[in-house]
Amino acid sequence: MNSNLQKTYDGLLVKAKEIAVLQSTEAIVTWDMETKMPPKALNLRSQQIALLEVIGHKMLTDPALGKTIEGIEKDPGYYELDRAQKRNVYLAKKAYDESTKLPEELVFETAKQQTIAVGVWKKAKAAKDYKMFKPELKKMIELRMKAADILMGVKGTKTPYDALLDAFESKMTADNITKVFDGMRVGLIDVMKKVEKADKPDTSILSSPVPVETQKKISDAAMEFIGYDTKSPNAGGRLDETEHPFTTGYYDDVRITTHYHEDRWPSSLYSVLHEGGHAMYEQGLPQEWMYQPIGSSASFGIHESQSRFVENMVGHSPEFLSYMLPKLKKIVGKPLRGVKLADFVAAVNVVEPSKIRIEADEVTYGLHIIIRFEMERDIFAGKLKVDELPHAWNEKYDKYLGVEIENDSEGVMQDTHWAGGLYGYFPSYALGNIYGGMFLKKLKRDAPTWKRELKKGNFQPVKGWLVENIHSKGNLYDPADLVKEVTGENLTVKPFINYLEKKYAKVYGF
Amino acid sequence: MNSNLQKTYDGLLVKAKEIAVLQSTEAIVTWDMETKMPPKALNLRSQQIALLEVIGHKMLTDPALGKTIEGIEKDPGYYELDRAQKRNVYLAKKAYDESTKLPEELVFETAKQQTIAVGVWKKAKAAKDYKMFKPELKKMIELRMKAADILMGVKGTKTPYDALLDAFESKMTADNITKVFDGMRVGLIDVMKKVEKADKPDTSILSSPVPVETQKKISDAAMEFIGYDTKSPNAGGRLDETEHPFTTGYYDDVRITTHYHEDRWPSSLYSVLHEGGHAMYEQGLPQEWMYQPIGSSASFGIHESQSRFVENMVGHSPEFLSYMLPKLKKIVGKPLRGVKLADFVAAVNVVEPSKIRIEADEVTYGLHIIIRFEMERDIFAGKLKVDELPHAWNEKYDKYLGVEIENDSEGVMQDTHWAGGLYGYFPSYALGNIYGGMFLKKLKRDAPTWKRELKKGNFQPVKGWLVENIHSKGNLYDPADLVKEVTGENLTVKPFINYLEKKYAKVYGF
Repeated sequence: MNSNLQKTYDGLLVKAKEIAVLQSTEAIVTWDMETKMPPKALNLRSQQIALLEVIGHKMLTDPALGKTIEGIEKDPGYYELDRAQKRNVYLAKKAYDESTKLPEELVFETAKQQTIAVGVWKKAKAAKDYKMFKPELKKMIELRMKAADILMGVKGTKTPYDALLDAFESKMTADNITKVFDGMRVGLIDVMKKVEKADKPDTSILSSPVPVETQKKISDAAMEFIGYDTKSPNAGGRLDETEHPFTTGYYDDVRITTHYHEDRWPSSLYSVLHEGGHAMYEQGLPQEWMYQPIGSSASFGIHESQSRFVENMVGHSPEFLSYMLPKLKKIVGKPLRGVKLADFVAAVNVVEPSKIRIEADEVTYGLHIIIRFEMERDIFAGKLKVDELPHAWNEKYDKYLGVEIENDSEGVMQDTHWAGGLYGYFPSYALGNIYGGMFLKKLKRDAPTWKRELKKGNFQPVKGWLVENIHSKGNLYDPADLVKEVTGENLTVKPFINYLEKKYAKVYGF
Repeated sequence: MNSNLQKTYDGLLVKAKEIAVLQSTEAIVTWDMETKMPPKALNLRSQQIALLEVIGHKMLTDPALGKTIEGIEKDPGYYELDRAQKRNVYLAKKAYDESTKLPEELVFETAKQQTIAVGVWKKAKAAKDYKMFKPELKKMIELRMKAADILMGVKGTKTPYDALLDAFESKMTADNITKVFDGMRVGLIDVMKKVEKADKPDTSILSSPVPVETQKKISDAAMEFIGYDTKSPNAGGRLDETEHPFTTGYYDDVRITTHYHEDRWPSSLYSVLHEGGHAMYEQGLPQEWMYQPIGSSASFGIHESQSRFVENMVGHSPEFLSYMLPKLKKIVGKPLRGVKLADFVAAVNVVEPSKIRIEADEVTYGLHIIIRFEMERDIFAGKLKVDELPHAWNEKYDKYLGVEIENDSEGVMQDTHWAGGLYGYFPSYALGNIYGGMFLKKLKRDAPTWKRELKKGNFQPVKGWLVENIHSKGNLYDPADLVKEVTGENLTVKPFINYLEKKYAKVYGF
């Protein structure tokens, strides 16, 4: 690198570091709000977060940053930059372009409307009154449509909705998703139907009351199993309790939360495994890329693939459960006394079409996502009006899942995402499963003994593979490229469906 | 106010709010570092705090802020501003002038030297090796001397040390402190000597082991007593554990910490009362001044007066203890069985000259402070060299407290303040006691039944008086003016000494 380019490039890294450090600060302040903050502080906290947002926006849209990026790109030495350096420049430019092209009034109005719409959504949901929610939802969609129109130009996507998708899954398009989701729908419904014909497992063992203090010991065991360290003198994690589990943080400070339901004790075990999977990803990013744009996850979907891999492909596997059940019996005592492994495996792998996405099992979950994706796609293509959403929703739930929605609170108003303007986010949840299926197929080839090792309580083959193939690559690739790089295949739902077929055939004996 | 001035003044409040919100954010991030942060995150956290410092410094030194202040001062309508508005302008100008006049290299080098000197201090203290610490201390003093020389010009103080004092006690001078401390020294030594002649109380009841869980219930009782709310749906406080107790936060989010010593259980009771006193002050600031310069405490010494008032004048009083002892007996059980009130009061009010400031009692504490103040004053007047500090220290401990210092780790190196460059801070600790004595005298006149009410468990007369006379005045006055406004008197140590004389005469029967 010539010395002038080196100087400009170093300047870019300095600015990128400021942004990363600021964002990691905001993560801590937000974590505190969810976990420790005295309730009276809510208004003050919203001022603090708003200020950090304003400062961050100033950093992201600083004209000096734009000049630095331009300087690098126009430098004759640009082509000698290595892949990581080029990707840093690309990611910085992408963030800069997107931030500078959205008018501040639109950003401001959207933020305001988010607060309003989420507030009204809460009330409307409680009152089961979609009419109350409708005008705010309509305005929210219009605002996001405006942003999507602008971003479509910046990103060069084919449709406005593709521009929204791109924020969560870079370069992913509705066409691609439609193709892969169509296959997934067929595959999932097929597995679901087969399961429906088999005997229902007895899930009552999962609902015996287990005290919170006991469940905490299960969490400890789960964290120890995956090597998520919250206790050593060099620990980089911690576990707290919140209403909804989440993961947040950056590199050396990645925190997870769980929720203890006394009458559904496996819920906390699996949320710890799920969030632990997210945390492992953040902690596994290359140390030397810390504070750089490439020192981040590849996409929301890839992130979700990591959490679901640990929660489902590992955590719900007969092999893991065969290792874990004796330990759980020791911790839990009476509620698990005499329970047989096969019955336990069947119980935690129960499949049941339901109305509520966040309570869905591994098989039906994707169907919930497909419904939201298809509706979002049609809304932003102008084919589906806000008036028609409840009807469209209920029809799809009947058609895909065979369940009847009785009111809009358990229907179109069940999730907060649309009130919050998060259009384009839902597909990432299901893409996580699809990526995970592809990774699993490759893992089997690369580390054929992984299941045998799991049975012995050894998570290392899986973890090592994930770190080497996914975590260590940070944000070097767009998600589809990463998947191709790792597996050699283009995006396909087949491995995920195969995995489900095989596991449920074994568990349910079909 | 004319509309032009109104606009400029409102602009000042907008900038002041940004600064206040940023500082309150830094307080939360620092709190997290001390209480919840995973250990691995230390380096990342130092980057986060450094960034917030840089951003805050930019806000404080923003030329636009200087112009806004100048615009208000030069406006013909300035003289129509009310007292609170003028004070806001004054405080903003003071902060602006001080921040802009210190060269950035000096600020940067001082921050760097703080880290280095504190690090070396820790090692030197462990090794009992003053020689190791000396060069870093010398450099730290030189850097603060440079700053003091500049600030002397900005603030118009008589000496450089007065400029340092001003940062903690606005407008206070070494001459004034010397006068009042000379009186305090005579008074304290007099009480100490009288106590020494009396029978020593039996303090063994204070060192019976009490489990942490039990001590937590004592903390709850103490917080309930003073009305520091950590539990209601509108709570604005919380209690956590740290090595050294502290208070931090802003208005609706003010947090305290304590430390549980199993073999010294009253330590946590009194640290909760002490920090609770600090927290009450922050929470008692006028809500309508939130985010304004006047919406802050009057000084470090006034802050300390509030914590010590609650800890000592209330918490160590026979009346409070007569109410509290039966409750403590219920909570603690065996270790307090059969203990008589008079013996308990005598035990917690034990007076004993010692080497370590932070373990000192109410009477000898001031003598520790006088020693540090006299030395700082002489160092910055060029009369005392870094080489001579251990000797000067040991001589004063012998002369004032009659204790022999055996090594510099229990002597001149016992506190972290000098390593951290905090010269001029120590006097505030003792001024807090002196202010407290003056407030007590006035409280007796304004609410003569306060002790009777304490005995009944009613803290309201005291709290109400403190809120009305101190908290509600925020930073409207410099500390000496506030004291005069509240008590009608100029700074005097007499009420504090009278209070000690009277209490200890009663407790020790002299």
